[in-house]
Amino acid sequence: MPRWSPDAALRLEAAAIPLFEEHGFGPTTVPQIAEAAGLTTRTFFRHFADKRDVLFLRDREFPHAVSDFMASIPPESSAPATVRAGLTAAGRGIQDWRQPIARRRRIVHSEPALHERELLQRHHLALAIEESLNQRGTDPRQSHTLAAVAVTCFSLAMERWLGGPTDRPFEECVESAWKDMRDCVDG
Amino acid sequence: MPRWSPDAALRLEAAAIPLFEEHGFGPTTVPQIAEAAGLTTRTFFRHFADKRDVLFLRDREFPHAVSDFMASIPPESSAPATVRAGLTAAGRGIQDWRQPIARRRRIVHSEPALHERELLQRHHLALAIEESLNQRGTDPRQSHTLAAVAVTCFSLAMERWLGGPTDRPFEECVESAWKDMRDCVDG
Repeated sequence: MPRWSPDAALRLEAAAIPLFEEHGFGPTTVPQIAEAAGLTTRTFFRHFADKRDVLFLRDREFPHAVSDFMASIPPESSAPATVRAGLTAAGRGIQDWRQPIARRRRIVHSEPALHERELLQRHHLALAIEESLNQRGTDPRQSHTLAAVAVTCFSLAMERWLGGPTDRPFEECVESAWKDMRDCVDG
Repeated sequence: MPRWSPDAALRLEAAAIPLFEEHGFGPTTVPQIAEAAGLTTRTFFRHFADKRDVLFLRDREFPHAVSDFMASIPPESSAPATVRAGLTAAGRGIQDWRQPIARRRRIVHSEPALHERELLQRHHLALAIEESLNQRGTDPRQSHTLAAVAVTCFSLAMERWLGGPTDRPFEECVESAWKDMRDCVDG
């Protein structure tokens, strides 16, 4: 029987990605992933609700990271500045993950069911940002709008980051996406 | 054997919504929906890829409507103005559907799998807008950013419209959401 492993979720993710790349997402089974990670199917389902979930391990914590950073920003900072600072600060945490994120993204975009799940994760990010803004006393309507804008910015920044040179900081992509969005809505 | 029906898709949608409301999305089966509509399961699958799809009948044509309106806007109109005009023009087409859209939305938001599908539909709207802008000769990066911004605006407008007084025009919600987004990104 496999021993308890504090890094089980990461090992399952590491085992799943090459299996999905080689055999496709559909044909790969949870028992195969668990076996490749040296763990049981039961352990898999303790960490992930379903097979898709194993690809979203790194997204799961991201909304909390953004909220935590936002909570640490001085109250006198404007709501938009707070959101941008939260995104860029959390973005620093993913800077070293560019390669696994890019591999995961290729799998996710090859499969509509995975793409849907990715979009739902973005929705969770929006909810986390909205909640953080409300806690700062931002007007609820502005919180809601700004959270939607922030997630759009995050998605655009992610595409630019993964499509750009390997050493480009994620936060630079956030700033450039925000600037382009501003130009768009002003036009 | 049920006769061929040009309005089969609409009848299936009309049959599905009360069944989902009464019994829940999960327990309701495709044969039950087909039976309630006086049609066969086979007819159902000629119109819809799966059970979820029956709830997105009205979304399916929306991206095309937006594209078509955008194509009819004079080339001298700026890209952002073109997108807003496309959204408001297509929005006039859904003005009379407020009640079925609101009922559908309650079902969709009660079920993560449906919510995911809705988000994917929004992604299709973004692709249609981006494509239309590219065809107008808009810079591809601006097209991409603006399409993301437009869909965010559409989502916000939809919430405001469904949450507001019944006679409020959808296009007014588009304008107000756009204005609020502008205030957010400028801050």
